[in-house]
Amino acid sequence: MNSFKTIGIIGGMGPLATYDLAEKILDNTVASCDQDNIPVIIDCNTRIADRTAAILHGGADPRPEMKKSAKRLEEAGADVLVMACNTAHYFYDSVCEDISVPVLHMPRLTAQLLLSKGVKKAGVLATDGTCQSGVYGDALEKEGIEPIYPSQEKQKIIMSLIYDYVKAGRMDFSDLDIDAVISEMKEKGAEILILGCTELPVAFGIIGDKGLPAVDPTDVLARAAVSFAGAPLKDVQQ
Amino acid sequence: MNSFKTIGIIGGMGPLATYDLAEKILDNTVASCDQDNIPVIIDCNTRIADRTAAILHGGADPRPEMKKSAKRLEEAGADVLVMACNTAHYFYDSVCEDISVPVLHMPRLTAQLLLSKGVKKAGVLATDGTCQSGVYGDALEKEGIEPIYPSQEKQKIIMSLIYDYVKAGRMDFSDLDIDAVISEMKEKGAEILILGCTELPVAFGIIGDKGLPAVDPTDVLARAAVSFAGAPLKDVQQ
Repeated sequence: MNSFKTIGIIGGMGPLATYDLAEKILDNTVASCDQDNIPVIIDCNTRIADRTAAILHGGADPRPEMKKSAKRLEEAGADVLVMACNTAHYFYDSVCEDISVPVLHMPRLTAQLLLSKGVKKAGVLATDGTCQSGVYGDALEKEGIEPIYPSQEKQKIIMSLIYDYVKAGRMDFSDLDIDAVISEMKEKGAEILILGCTELPVAFGIIGDKGLPAVDPTDVLARAAVSFAGAPLKDVQQ
Repeated sequence: MNSFKTIGIIGGMGPLATYDLAEKILDNTVASCDQDNIPVIIDCNTRIADRTAAILHGGADPRPEMKKSAKRLEEAGADVLVMACNTAHYFYDSVCEDISVPVLHMPRLTAQLLLSKGVKKAGVLATDGTCQSGVYGDALEKEGIEPIYPSQEKQKIIMSLIYDYVKAGRMDFSDLDIDAVISEMKEKGAEILILGCTELPVAFGIIGDKGLPAVDPTDVLARAAVSFAGAPLKDVQQ
């Protein structure tokens, strides 16, 4: 029987991104049988209100249900909590309020990884909501890294890529001028791209290398969770 | 906020099969946003001992940890429990012992679906462990359906398909004489194939139609769970 710590996932934001994070925890663990893997408890709480709507448009408050999930996971035996949703980290302090187990912070972990690589300027690709929530901007600035955002015109391309393409299951992006977005980011001095929306690693896996390295925060979070749990971490692929 | 019942998944048997079931619950629910989905709590308990080893070779007893997971999920608020692992249903009675919420039984639900279709003889494709545990044989016989198993020689092809191919990530099955297995099942009078191992729906999705219909018990279980939770069920595809 393994003696790893138990990871709790505050999930449902959205459900697919939740299971994607859970699978990335598996992918990053050295395991040759079921029992070599880390115990994970997932609360896929679909009663959590939309985060973007709450931040940008005064929609229903997601915090009460997020806090319920955190408490439920702690009571069920989770030793550390994680959230797959980038935007949800806007409410990080509230989530931590009533629990005594730590919550790993995806944008801050990503910023710390970039700091360790010596990055000075990082491009932030995400939804309007995530960008405006400042979750990546704040995390990067805390580490002395300058966040670079696309211009309004290029941001529209990213929003279309997320909503009209990946979320809608359209995986041929040849009509979208992704090159223009990357070129702009390079011109503004970005040394790396943060794929700060769970749809973007899917898209960039298909788009391939465009001359700027990219980091997937879900993967960064999964690896941090595996380390925290005390399980052997797989070497980074690529 | 949705008022669906909460589904609990006793997971970790194995972890990938667990998330596959969770995704099939999503796939079978009519939903246009995160909040339209069913709340799901997953206990991916990798401390549960190997089921096949326990049944066939006197290995460590998986029941104590299975029961812990069931209790944990009930206490966390699950209204109904499910298990993704076919073989685990050998221990079904133990799992139910100390809890008061119902546990859906994947092989029995599958047998009942076949009964409703008028099936008299059903082919069981599964691991040696699942076949010998009798989970499908018992469930089918209870409904008056005769289980048809492959001969020893053909069973070796199924075991190879599961272990040497799908579990090992080899998805070109042209070296395996799957046709011979299907022909034998037809000759023995099987009207439908039960894909009673979580690797087999993956393989048969690639192999395609071989003249015998097939049923995926994980999908049957997912649909039963969606109905139980009170969420709108998607029409069956195909």
